[in-house]
Amino acid sequence: MPRFSTSVSALRSSAIRELMSLASRPDIISFAGGMPGNELFPVDEVEELFRGLDTKTKQAAFQYGPTPGLPSLLESLGGFLERKGLPVKKNRLMITTGSQQALSIVARAFVDPGDQVLTEYPCFIGAIAAFRSAGAQIVSIPVDEEGLDIAMLRKEAARPDPAKFLYITPYFHNPAGMLYTSERKRELVEALQGRDIPLIEDDAYGDLWFSEEDRERLTPIKALDPEGIDICYMGSFSKILGPGLRLGWLLAPEAIYEKCELIKQSADACSPSFSQVIADAFIRSGKIDGYIATVREEYKHRAASMTNALRKHLPEYVRWNEPKGGFYIWLTLPEGADATEILKRAIEGGAVFVTGSTFDPAGKRNNTMRLSYCNNTPAEIERGIPIIARAIREVCG
Amino acid sequence: MPRFSTSVSALRSSAIRELMSLASRPDIISFAGGMPGNELFPVDEVEELFRGLDTKTKQAAFQYGPTPGLPSLLESLGGFLERKGLPVKKNRLMITTGSQQALSIVARAFVDPGDQVLTEYPCFIGAIAAFRSAGAQIVSIPVDEEGLDIAMLRKEAARPDPAKFLYITPYFHNPAGMLYTSERKRELVEALQGRDIPLIEDDAYGDLWFSEEDRERLTPIKALDPEGIDICYMGSFSKILGPGLRLGWLLAPEAIYEKCELIKQSADACSPSFSQVIADAFIRSGKIDGYIATVREEYKHRAASMTNALRKHLPEYVRWNEPKGGFYIWLTLPEGADATEILKRAIEGGAVFVTGSTFDPAGKRNNTMRLSYCNNTPAEIERGIPIIARAIREVCG
Repeated sequence: MPRFSTSVSALRSSAIRELMSLASRPDIISFAGGMPGNELFPVDEVEELFRGLDTKTKQAAFQYGPTPGLPSLLESLGGFLERKGLPVKKNRLMITTGSQQALSIVARAFVDPGDQVLTEYPCFIGAIAAFRSAGAQIVSIPVDEEGLDIAMLRKEAARPDPAKFLYITPYFHNPAGMLYTSERKRELVEALQGRDIPLIEDDAYGDLWFSEEDRERLTPIKALDPEGIDICYMGSFSKILGPGLRLGWLLAPEAIYEKCELIKQSADACSPSFSQVIADAFIRSGKIDGYIATVREEYKHRAASMTNALRKHLPEYVRWNEPKGGFYIWLTLPEGADATEILKRAIEGGAVFVTGSTFDPAGKRNNTMRLSYCNNTPAEIERGIPIIARAIREVCG
Repeated sequence: MPRFSTSVSALRSSAIRELMSLASRPDIISFAGGMPGNELFPVDEVEELFRGLDTKTKQAAFQYGPTPGLPSLLESLGGFLERKGLPVKKNRLMITTGSQQALSIVARAFVDPGDQVLTEYPCFIGAIAAFRSAGAQIVSIPVDEEGLDIAMLRKEAARPDPAKFLYITPYFHNPAGMLYTSERKRELVEALQGRDIPLIEDDAYGDLWFSEEDRERLTPIKALDPEGIDICYMGSFSKILGPGLRLGWLLAPEAIYEKCELIKQSADACSPSFSQVIADAFIRSGKIDGYIATVREEYKHRAASMTNALRKHLPEYVRWNEPKGGFYIWLTLPEGADATEILKRAIEGGAVFVTGSTFDPAGKRNNTMRLSYCNNTPAEIERGIPIIARAIREVCG
């Protein structure tokens, strides 16, 4: 056996890989994936935009670009983020190869093997993988429907040798589906101020809100620009253009940015210029705004189909969130229920979802399930949810 | 100051960043970059290929793909590599985000902070950055015009706690420009067999040979499939399609591949589907073969312009290789000469190159210079080389 490094020896393949191969079977209705529906991608618009570019720009799409990103995209994306109130000019912006790379880079920047980092429970699996790959010990703090457990955060922040950072996904949480309240964000900031624990704020879904009245709660903490706390804000083109472009971004204070740029240089030199040229044209043409408005409506429609079906079919003892945006509904079963057993029955019936333990850094708590409605038609949702409900009843009574 | 990780605290920005910003000035002739000329990219062919794809494939270009790569590209690239004699079926193939990511992944797979790795001197700077970012201590073994110093390799391999791997770029070396002999490759294999030191074989330039008679020397060591040695073979679309697509590959034995896939999953989830769809169409259409033949001729022509100019203008005490392929000519100045001082004078004259110390893991040895002819017209070469020659004479007499 080759002499692998310590941190990679500890890495194990996630069950999600097998699940995804199941999810691609045509006879299975999948509520497992976190990917947009293929039919929603702006294929024709992008092809037309590319055709209209001048030769010099098309050639640049084939060439290496600067490590932090193509200057034209940094400018147009900077404008896009400034319209969200983000302090782009006071920080440095970097294009990453998906926001997954932003997570990986931030982990490398801060974590020595054995160091602690704080995450939410439940937590985005890509973040768990990135932090663990850097050798981090994950300390998870539960979220409720308003955000992170602040008392527990205060306790962790007060330790003499506190964790290297706190990672949160406050806007249409993956997998918990919820949206932080403004009050909870304020409390979180207070708990971190002056504590030397940078905040990693992941905002991959924030554009996908369903109701105007929730928009105030969507203001990034980074946009509030609180003093005494280093905030690394990250986002992605995956949900507002297409994950296949592999483009995300990191907005970070200068000192952190400098280290992250060196790590990125050694990780893949630069993000794909081809994708960057496309994303830049998509923003500059203004098409991005119309596209976001369209998918927002579509996901709202799909979410409504799913909530209707859940209301109709689920046993009363299952608790779940009414989604305000994003991709996910998080089901909580009675204490002691085993979502893995439910998944087995659901697969037999022809539907899949992701079990809660996948999102538990400790891999244990499993009386929860994530259902995604982003990649299903209302008809599929109406056929699939009864299968899930039946599997739950079979296991939980 | 944020509490950065130990390995990132040690990372420093390379001088090459400033050099590259100089290199983009229109009044400067740059022999510094290792990028293909923009005018050589197959822009029209790729646009036409993309237009001809069916809707399903175009949609897949916007979607996440499997971590190891799109199945269709793994198949077509596998065929491309099998035609080079590589044992694709006995190993596992993975698409990476440029071969830079393959370097980064391999480093993460094997290196714990403080571990030694073996490289050539001089060594590709991307590899130095990737290995160092994983915390590696680099032990460099000199190359001559036939390959690595075998006696020194034997000594290093015989240590009780040997280095984690050996990294080499045997085919049109970056920066040394040379091509390993078959004999030297044989000796290298013998030195490593049974030593538990995997070989990382980087073949980014192998397709760019200038003469049929050198082709035998271009057979990858991986293709010889020697027993008792784990070989990770990596390559790139950067020189045979375009670096802006950020696509490379890693062909590795199963056990190593498994770990590398987990690292890739956490690094960026998957490489850009958009680029992969393009590369797949480029291979399957057969256009890649015609394109490689074209750029091969073009680089051969540029190399001839540069060797003519060097022969005419350089002082006799400068030693350099006649390139047999690839992008680079490596100049060796008399012992004690300072290429940084020559670079200063050259910049004043209006031309840039990369100093030898950049490619020295220890950052010291500096009586060498890398000239790249890949991105210059013969006219630029004829104007630029006299500037370089003058700077050398001013400093070395």
